[in-house]
Amino acid sequence: MASDPAYAEAVAAHSEFELLSHASVENIKEWSPTVKGATSATLTKTLFVKPKTAKSDPTVFYMIVALETSEFSITAVGQALKLKEARIAAEDAIRSNLGVDKDHVTPFALAKLTDKSTVKVVVDSSLQSLAESTALVFRGLTSDKSVVITRESFQKYLDAVGNEVVPLDFSSLTGSSAASGPKASESKAEAPKKEAPKKAPASAAIAETAAKEATIGIDAKKEDDFSTWYQQVVVRSEMLDYYDISGCYILRPWAYKIWKEIQGWFGTRIEDLGVEDCYFPMFVSKRSLEREKDHIEGFAPEVAWVTKAGDSELEEHIAVRPTSETVMYPYYGKWIRSHRDLPLRLNQWNNVVRWEFKYPQPFLRTREFLWQEGHTVFATKEEAAKEVLEILDLYCRVYEELLAVPMVKGTKSEKEKFAGGLYTTTVEGFIPTTGRGIQGATSHCLGQNFAKMFDIHVLNEKQEKQYVWQNSWGLTTRTIGVMVMVHGDDKGLVLPPRVASIQVVVVPVGITAKATAEERASIENKAEEIAKTLSQAGIRVKSDTRDNVTPGFKFNHWELRGVPIRLEVGPKDLKANSVRSVLRYNGAASSLPLDGLAGAIKGLLEEIQENMFQKANAVRQSRTVRLESWNGFVKTLNAKNLVLVPWCEAVDCEDAVKERSAKETLEELKESQDARAPSMGAKSLCIPHEQPQENPLVPGTTKCFQCGKDAKSYTLFGRSY
Amino acid sequence: MASDPAYAEAVAAHSEFELLSHASVENIKEWSPTVKGATSATLTKTLFVKPKTAKSDPTVFYMIVALETSEFSITAVGQALKLKEARIAAEDAIRSNLGVDKDHVTPFALAKLTDKSTVKVVVDSSLQSLAESTALVFRGLTSDKSVVITRESFQKYLDAVGNEVVPLDFSSLTGSSAASGPKASESKAEAPKKEAPKKAPASAAIAETAAKEATIGIDAKKEDDFSTWYQQVVVRSEMLDYYDISGCYILRPWAYKIWKEIQGWFGTRIEDLGVEDCYFPMFVSKRSLEREKDHIEGFAPEVAWVTKAGDSELEEHIAVRPTSETVMYPYYGKWIRSHRDLPLRLNQWNNVVRWEFKYPQPFLRTREFLWQEGHTVFATKEEAAKEVLEILDLYCRVYEELLAVPMVKGTKSEKEKFAGGLYTTTVEGFIPTTGRGIQGATSHCLGQNFAKMFDIHVLNEKQEKQYVWQNSWGLTTRTIGVMVMVHGDDKGLVLPPRVASIQVVVVPVGITAKATAEERASIENKAEEIAKTLSQAGIRVKSDTRDNVTPGFKFNHWELRGVPIRLEVGPKDLKANSVRSVLRYNGAASSLPLDGLAGAIKGLLEEIQENMFQKANAVRQSRTVRLESWNGFVKTLNAKNLVLVPWCEAVDCEDAVKERSAKETLEELKESQDARAPSMGAKSLCIPHEQPQENPLVPGTTKCFQCGKDAKSYTLFGRSY
Repeated sequence: MASDPAYAEAVAAHSEFELLSHASVENIKEWSPTVKGATSATLTKTLFVKPKTAKSDPTVFYMIVALETSEFSITAVGQALKLKEARIAAEDAIRSNLGVDKDHVTPFALAKLTDKSTVKVVVDSSLQSLAESTALVFRGLTSDKSVVITRESFQKYLDAVGNEVVPLDFSSLTGSSAASGPKASESKAEAPKKEAPKKAPASAAIAETAAKEATIGIDAKKEDDFSTWYQQVVVRSEMLDYYDISGCYILRPWAYKIWKEIQGWFGTRIEDLGVEDCYFPMFVSKRSLEREKDHIEGFAPEVAWVTKAGDSELEEHIAVRPTSETVMYPYYGKWIRSHRDLPLRLNQWNNVVRWEFKYPQPFLRTREFLWQEGHTVFATKEEAAKEVLEILDLYCRVYEELLAVPMVKGTKSEKEKFAGGLYTTTVEGFIPTTGRGIQGATSHCLGQNFAKMFDIHVLNEKQEKQYVWQNSWGLTTRTIGVMVMVHGDDKGLVLPPRVASIQVVVVPVGITAKATAEERASIENKAEEIAKTLSQAGIRVKSDTRDNVTPGFKFNHWELRGVPIRLEVGPKDLKANSVRSVLRYNGAASSLPLDGLAGAIKGLLEEIQENMFQKANAVRQSRTVRLESWNGFVKTLNAKNLVLVPWCEAVDCEDAVKERSAKETLEELKESQDARAPSMGAKSLCIPHEQPQENPLVPGTTKCFQCGKDAKSYTLFGRSY
Repeated sequence: MASDPAYAEAVAAHSEFELLSHASVENIKEWSPTVKGATSATLTKTLFVKPKTAKSDPTVFYMIVALETSEFSITAVGQALKLKEARIAAEDAIRSNLGVDKDHVTPFALAKLTDKSTVKVVVDSSLQSLAESTALVFRGLTSDKSVVITRESFQKYLDAVGNEVVPLDFSSLTGSSAASGPKASESKAEAPKKEAPKKAPASAAIAETAAKEATIGIDAKKEDDFSTWYQQVVVRSEMLDYYDISGCYILRPWAYKIWKEIQGWFGTRIEDLGVEDCYFPMFVSKRSLEREKDHIEGFAPEVAWVTKAGDSELEEHIAVRPTSETVMYPYYGKWIRSHRDLPLRLNQWNNVVRWEFKYPQPFLRTREFLWQEGHTVFATKEEAAKEVLEILDLYCRVYEELLAVPMVKGTKSEKEKFAGGLYTTTVEGFIPTTGRGIQGATSHCLGQNFAKMFDIHVLNEKQEKQYVWQNSWGLTTRTIGVMVMVHGDDKGLVLPPRVASIQVVVVPVGITAKATAEERASIENKAEEIAKTLSQAGIRVKSDTRDNVTPGFKFNHWELRGVPIRLEVGPKDLKANSVRSVLRYNGAASSLPLDGLAGAIKGLLEEIQENMFQKANAVRQSRTVRLESWNGFVKTLNAKNLVLVPWCEAVDCEDAVKERSAKETLEELKESQDARAPSMGAKSLCIPHEQPQENPLVPGTTKCFQCGKDAKSYTLFGRSY
């Protein structure tokens, strides 16, 4: 590996690893015993497989990556992938495709591969479900060195090299005797296949439910293993389920309701601004899609193409919209004939498809997602610029006022702006657990670029052809994922009251085995009565009077789902004419008098909403560090902070920041021998619209933290999703 | 033609035509002069074209159908279709593909073609935009007979034979000197290409607008040329625009708002029933799609397939959902584990794709459309059956209470039910102008069929595996098209108040050229003030104070768009402290006092809504004719009625009804020598839930109107969309 600088560089640019020196091994059989003695990292194995392929078809190889302890047959893997007669590839095929011999098959050979379509990577879920920080060891390119890399960094590496990754649960394979990892059960796309023996005798209903109880909680810790924690929270809270097409997810009512709340709030506000809803087809012809070159370059690799209808090949292939600029603007050109047709302000709520080959992640990176896309046209740049900020402000309020997630409003750097647009404004969030920034939503001024491509113009007073000014802006279901990541805890989801499907759950408690039927009924009736009172006051409430589960089960059930307030009603409470409230976000319990309960609950919901935001905002503030020079930049990043620095705003300088921070992180890592590698290089998140007031930037004097040229702004840098 | 019975039969089954005898013609050049003398029908020409095709690809031929007077070059047509070197096909290719010689090329040869994918039909828009009743004459299969057929029947014939039809505006072709039909300008998919010279000097704004005024109205008459009228109404009212992919349309705000009203009303009601919204992926894997055989057979020919992402071929082809049974039910099987998980009642509002090759029609038959689909699961058949009817009732109310369109609730015959389901209930509408029925929305009981396929079960009290009972139900944007067809008139759209984006438009009038600035301002201010008052009362109102168009222009503008009430405010009205109201649906004008105007308008809007429904309902009632036997059945149909008859409900009897009614119509047509052919055979629309009370069916005594066996019900038959 070290012998091939180009290769080492490719890997280093994408992720972090360290080389483990050991006794030279002659062949792959010797590797395991040799390496086991040299590291405590978890061993892996990599196989290179070829299915039988018709001569007319191009061969696609499969690189199988699994834990060294995983037992499986290549036949079973092949069957699960619907491959014909999968076999270990012949030596010459390995050499010609990976550039290594059969004893050096390693995922790191993929970095040099130019045609990514020739090799797909199959990763066993039991590897994939290990904690992010788990150190893995892979075969290297030379006989005496192996590669140690965290599971998280390995995933990033795979994302970066860009081969298609197919997750597969090896433990579910026919005839497989392998034990899967303890958390493998929900973390992949094969969900429908993997049903555990699911039916139990109905007479044992309570026992069954008790057993279920043990598995419905979250067993991963947010701080220890964030990615497993996240998967468990979104699946077990019933927000989402995995689907049998990778990168597509099912939005269940518990999540969809949040989207509806966002739609209602944002939809009303843009309607007030004069924006109208419409619906354009989801298909776009090749010629329309390709009309704006920069734009299509940004999207082309991810476009899904419809080429067949029934058994017929389509004459012209049709793209599924990745976004609708090229769908809509030809018609804008047709409809807009004079100043009187301006402004034109349309919006649609729809689904779009971006067929990314990187690791998908629920809500954050999905191949199909839901969003709204606004597409507006103005006569002047000023009007367009004004709207860009109005919309950005609404996006910020969706996060801050509905989801209680703090955002920073700013403008994207030249490198990070929307393909084909003039400038991009953004709201940037922060995920404290990983220390990374995350783009929340973007509002673009497209300038006149699309107007020129699609000939959208009016005549001005001097009868001159005048191209219009355009904006586009979008907010996606990613919002929900950000909310989960920011507020969730080790018990599961924590929902801000404004978007919670159920804001209050009422649970009867203290009904002992000795209780009479009347005692039981009186408590349950009280619970129902309280729920009714609250419901009439406009509070979204549910009383959980199930008789087949314990109060403890119900507590867990609703905590996992993030319901903001639990009200417990028991015999003592009844006597005291009160009820016990427990708040989800901080666990605080208190007694509330039944008189005036609805008013008290309403106040409490508002208080929770505000406090959740303040709590998240305080964390964010404390983790945004201002620096004036490169000194300490990487250390600050590595301590999971965002960094605010004076910057020249040049594209090549941003490239340098990324490269330099990646390299330094790597060096730091080697020194510390810490296998828990932090992430790859930093990028600019945004140039905040609110610039520092204290010691502000002095033009011509303040210098760029990286290159030393004149700084143009204080810019927020960070690692990012 | 008469010499080939199989062929004549195929055509007759699909549509109506008559044979025109004439002097025998030796070759195609002689045909025109010969036929011209023998008929007043419009002559056509048909060419058979072959593009250059790579040897590895299958050849697709193009049959070009145009008016005989149309001038175009095959090269230009080929370019527009992106064909390589299109040429008239060689004689042997014509013979082997169409079974005719080069002098008998005719669209009617397509009926015998077994592989529909080998020939696409290109129809010139100037033919397509002729009135439906226009008689066309085509070359026949023998030398001395030609085929006379109405444009409408010809279209039906093309629909029925099933070859892909590509509409093309020959007048827009490069280098074409052909004059296109007068109404060709908006009636096809090539919209963006066809912009007329669109910019005029701004100083001539009023003149320009006046010119525009002349073209924005509807020039086709609803009764004379229904299909052109419909296209003009939906396009010129700005409800919809044509898109550059055939069968896909743009829903503009004026139509989309109606959809939103429907969503709001129906969404609230199903939420009250306990149905929750969710979102499933729009992609479905081949293996899931194909799991229920009957179901997939119903949809397979129309499924759009994604086979590529970026430049990569996908391992497994992925279907775009034509409906979501097979998308959702694998997960239902996973989620439902006990009785306590039932009922499961989910709904989604989304887009689906059915790639039909028939002629598309805005709102009614589109390749992508919007709908809601409910998918629910119950423990018992009784619960499922109850919901089926609850939902059907809501569908009926959407049409009747929101869209003021009368419906008949009923159950579909075995032949017409949903593929894979147990039974289908439906609301059936009626389009008086064509005398045809139209399916409004369907609510299916799926029974246990899908449950068995997808293993969705619970255990009953006896520990026995018990499959669940399922329903699915859907309402689409077709609703909007039905509303347009029922209420629209020669001035354009007529909107029922409850779904109108704008319920009232206020127009200043009587401002003469001599009016002072103050006089003008006082009237305009009054108009604004009235609008404000109404708006505050919750009425959707707009004041049209544009100063570049006349009041007459505004009247036309808002009439075309169907706004229910126009209020005119002029100097006289001001003096009388009143305003003049004109109702869109019946043209009634009256004077309303300004005092208490909001209350009066609210009452008026309700009255309009009710009257529009009553008016449509009266027409429908008068056009639903009860018969007891076959006698008069076809005549009644041909007089544009629906027919209620006692029926045995057998599938073969329904087939016989269709065939027999088609044949008789044809005979009638020949006798009457009427080129205005009515439509093809009749089918059952539904078995109405409300059966006749007067002289009701007597089991064992009342006989089937067609076959004479015992009748099971009175069933509604008709020609149908």
